[in-house]
Amino acid sequence: MREAAVVGVGMHPFGRHPDRSLKDLGREAVWRAIDDAGIDPRRIGCAYVGNSLGGLLTGQEGIRGQVVLHDCGLDDIPVINVENACASGSTALRGAWLEVASGACDVALALGVEKMFVGDTARSLAALAADSEIELAAMGMQFSAVYAIHPKYNLRGRMDEYGWTARDFADVVVKNSRHGALNPYAQHRRALDADEVLASPMVTDPLTRLMCSSIGDGAAAAIVCARDDAASLSERVPITIAAAHLRSGHFVTSGDPHLTTLRDMVAALYDEAGIGPEDIDVAEVHDAMAPVELLVYEQLGLCGPGEGPRLVREGHTAIGGAQPVNPSGGLTSRGHPVGATGLGQVVELVWQLRGEAGARQAKERPLTALAHNQGGLLASMDSAAYALTLLTR
Amino acid sequence: MREAAVVGVGMHPFGRHPDRSLKDLGREAVWRAIDDAGIDPRRIGCAYVGNSLGGLLTGQEGIRGQVVLHDCGLDDIPVINVENACASGSTALRGAWLEVASGACDVALALGVEKMFVGDTARSLAALAADSEIELAAMGMQFSAVYAIHPKYNLRGRMDEYGWTARDFADVVVKNSRHGALNPYAQHRRALDADEVLASPMVTDPLTRLMCSSIGDGAAAAIVCARDDAASLSERVPITIAAAHLRSGHFVTSGDPHLTTLRDMVAALYDEAGIGPEDIDVAEVHDAMAPVELLVYEQLGLCGPGEGPRLVREGHTAIGGAQPVNPSGGLTSRGHPVGATGLGQVVELVWQLRGEAGARQAKERPLTALAHNQGGLLASMDSAAYALTLLTR
Repeated sequence: MREAAVVGVGMHPFGRHPDRSLKDLGREAVWRAIDDAGIDPRRIGCAYVGNSLGGLLTGQEGIRGQVVLHDCGLDDIPVINVENACASGSTALRGAWLEVASGACDVALALGVEKMFVGDTARSLAALAADSEIELAAMGMQFSAVYAIHPKYNLRGRMDEYGWTARDFADVVVKNSRHGALNPYAQHRRALDADEVLASPMVTDPLTRLMCSSIGDGAAAAIVCARDDAASLSERVPITIAAAHLRSGHFVTSGDPHLTTLRDMVAALYDEAGIGPEDIDVAEVHDAMAPVELLVYEQLGLCGPGEGPRLVREGHTAIGGAQPVNPSGGLTSRGHPVGATGLGQVVELVWQLRGEAGARQAKERPLTALAHNQGGLLASMDSAAYALTLLTR
Repeated sequence: MREAAVVGVGMHPFGRHPDRSLKDLGREAVWRAIDDAGIDPRRIGCAYVGNSLGGLLTGQEGIRGQVVLHDCGLDDIPVINVENACASGSTALRGAWLEVASGACDVALALGVEKMFVGDTARSLAALAADSEIELAAMGMQFSAVYAIHPKYNLRGRMDEYGWTARDFADVVVKNSRHGALNPYAQHRRALDADEVLASPMVTDPLTRLMCSSIGDGAAAAIVCARDDAASLSERVPITIAAAHLRSGHFVTSGDPHLTTLRDMVAALYDEAGIGPEDIDVAEVHDAMAPVELLVYEQLGLCGPGEGPRLVREGHTAIGGAQPVNPSGGLTSRGHPVGATGLGQVVELVWQLRGEAGARQAKERPLTALAHNQGGLLASMDSAAYALTLLTR
């Protein structure tokens, strides 16, 4: 397959936008991406649109992408609506990559868009259910509670084993909130201190509210083309999609401390790209709940088991550190409009690799960036979808 | 790209299955396809799952495919949930084809599944809305009414121009009902006569109820692999996916009698495959409303403008005729569980090409088969998704 590259990116700021519809959010991200690439929109040969909750939350169940893109003036192309819970955006990007890499299409659009503020928070949370027969009907549980007790995360067990404390989780939030405060696209733009995070209302022990991502509205888009065509299509520095891996998780036994699906995926990705964890210059990871960021450090090989809090304390993963993680502010600060999140990560990393991230430029001239996005939990299963996207300049 | 082929197919009978969930429907189709191919399910490297209405109708908004496939014992692979209204099943097949054709994956599963009987028909119909802001909120219209008055179909205009009568539409239903009566997977298995079709309650002039597909539950699945690997993987005669084209429609002006998107797609498909309309041995077309079948005859080049009723009267498109269309019974008789329909067409055509269709074998040793599936209408747009799948033995 041929190499594919991102030549244009755009976002609608993540946040609470009660007056904006799915169409409004999507249109802004798409047109910003088209303008950024500087391409004629008629060059776009297909579109992948990631959205997770539009059916239950907006009533737009079918052809969500066509409804949004028709409003952008884009039609007469293949439109593929994809869904993978919180990994829907990355799934859209992978689709655009496969179309271009395979030669099926020369220029592809990937859009992630989500509208969550619909005036009924309980309904928004219920729509996030993993297996609706089990979580909602039988257990009546909501998402953050599932996260806290799920054997895959086993947060209490990790705290016992590693000596992690709630303060360690708060430190992750503090770091990301400082990053988010520098990001005009972020939902939460105030730098927090650890005491404030710890004092916020308890959601599910050990998670306080400020350790959890909140619901949000937003959209992010990317234009993908063949690497060899990039120079003739756009004046932008092309950012190569070196790998776009997607997998659903496997069964886990209760209390299993190993996220083996993700670990295996990371190994395969490093192997394919011929790199190691030390080569990651900057990353965006899926901190839907702050402790997840610490677990993902281990899975990515940025540190050994249990060593995540040290990386945070030493500034290793802060802007200006050796391997900045979540310079955008991550899910906890930039926000987590479900289907838009994965593409929001990719947009941020494209800006970082181009050196266009302004006050939150993670390091000078980064060459290699990794996005980790995941979505959905099933009772006896690892995450329903893991997505890893490796970008290089 | 390399050639890809279908080596296994399976269906859950279409119909009213109030006691069966999305998982039950999907599991049966998937395992029948795996058994049909005779492959080890661990060979399946990725899955595309097409479903349109599961969020609004079953409450399973996110990760529908993972929920269904987990219940089948399939996990640890990429799962891509796709949606394209009534063309969701074909969109899933195209995804599986692209994975295999590109070399990204060696064996891919495509599943289309839909659960529509949920005890509230008004809710089922409302979920089918095209643009929910316009059709539902502003106009309060339901799907069949949109079909009847949409400028793309312009049924009254065609009747004036071509001299078509309601009886011509009834004749299509009669033909397809005779086919459906022979199909153990069909929802409606009684051969109808034209008077009965004409006397059934008027839905939207000129459409009577028996001219319209009804809501249904069902699932259909296909296993796709590289053509060159087929002999080593399965004892089944491989059916080559010669083309899998998908496109959304373009803007139409009011009263435009030309379905130009579909016409252009058909021309491109024939050109790519080096065939003409005379080479189509058997077809499944999207007769969501009976007159659509007559319009599609024209678009496929099976006849000139307005000549569709003659093809039906002469038996050209009946089982045993020169070019049988909808040997399964089509959407009006076999049924139309939205997200399953496109794969139901493909399953039928695979059986036809293998010579395994029993009493409804359309002709002896067909070599070339075409599926036409489409989905979604937007106010000023041609269909939201057209899909054409060309299969060859």
